Amino acid sequence: MSGLLITWEGLDRVGKTTQLRLVADWLRGEVREVVTVREPGGTPFGEKLREVLLREADAVSSLAEFLAFAAARAELMETVVLPALARHAVVLMDRFIDSSVAYQAFGRGVELDVVQTVNRAATRGRMPDLTIWLKGEPFGDSEGVDRVEGRTPAYFRRVEAGYRWLSEQEPERWVVLDARQDPAVIFEAERARIRQILIQKGGDPR
Amino acid sequence: MSGLLITWEGLDRVGKTTQLRLVADWLRGEVREVVTVREPGGTPFGEKLREVLLREADAVSSLAEFLAFAAARAELMETVVLPALARHAVVLMDRFIDSSVAYQAFGRGVELDVVQTVNRAATRGRMPDLTIWLKGEPFGDSEGVDRVEGRTPAYFRRVEAGYRWLSEQEPERWVVLDARQDPAVIFEAERARIRQILIQKGGDPR
Repeated sequence: MSGLLITWEGLDRVGKTTQLRLVADWLRGEVREVVTVREPGGTPFGEKLREVLLREADAVSSLAEFLAFAAARAELMETVVLPALARHAVVLMDRFIDSSVAYQAFGRGVELDVVQTVNRAATRGRMPDLTIWLKGEPFGDSEGVDRVEGRTPAYFRRVEAGYRWLSEQEPERWVVLDARQDPAVIFEAERARIRQILIQKGGDPR
Repeated sequence: MSGLLITWEGLDRVGKTTQLRLVADWLRGEVREVVTVREPGGTPFGEKLREVLLREADAVSSLAEFLAFAAARAELMETVVLPALARHAVVLMDRFIDSSVAYQAFGRGVELDVVQTVNRAATRGRMPDLTIWLKGEPFGDSEGVDRVEGRTPAYFRRVEAGYRWLSEQEPERWVVLDARQDPAVIFEAERARIRQILIQKGGDPR
């Protein structure tokens, strides 16, 4: 197999990082190499862009924000993700191309066609083998979220509509899981699906 | 008129900044508002990206580099250039979209279609009214240039081929001037052409 690329999507604080860790811990006993990455960041260039984005994100235009994310993504793919996949690793990503479609295109109005053209270029056309959408409201205190300009309930509904549209476009790639379930229950569903894919793709067991 | 957008293109150290200043000084006596900008930069977000790009440019992939430039460009257009043009200002830019076509597409191999799609989005379709290509070898010491990886004579020939291709695509937008001429001679040619455009467009004289 030519590696396996699994991505987690959904709103902030729905449990993506927790699930990614559970899956990584399990997979480390199952396959030869597991690589975990987060967006934006994961490279020296990307980490610097991440700093700029975290400091400036709500002050910059939606297109500029998207392009800076995409720049970090292109570098991450080129230097980390594609080489890992070429080594037959399983790569687990906390957010990926679909975040740009949901947040920047559906959420903030960047032209969908521009987002998809850039995504295709940045990924060299390598799509995820599996995308897990943890669907649901963010956990915990949501004060910080609502205060940020433009991050209204309507904005989050548009982001969710983006994820829904994406999952309907490619149902075979997407698994939609209710984020309000117990993390162990979510993990079991993920594990079952990933096992299935590893068998289908002729996995690379340890 | 809806403002005037004039851009300078060409290799580094062929005299773009000098010419831009000469034209700016002259135009400040002719029109109500002159705005000068440089790429990348010109906004808080863009200046931070500029720092990252100047430190990392030769370490990052060509696509990541292009997208970071484009992010800075989108922000500059949105917050500086388009508002200035809406106020009927004359905007003078040291490099713009054509630099990406010449350097990143022709020079470093980023897909031309991706560069043009992103450029169109970043500029909201507002093309320069006039682009001045100062054609020629860089002045002064070129040591630093040749040492940088990938910045070979062949690379600069590809960049020049990119500018040639662009100028042939839109001959009415481009003026090609021999950069080896005396700066005063170049300035006279620029002034003649800009006067002509100001008259055509129904200028906004002081």
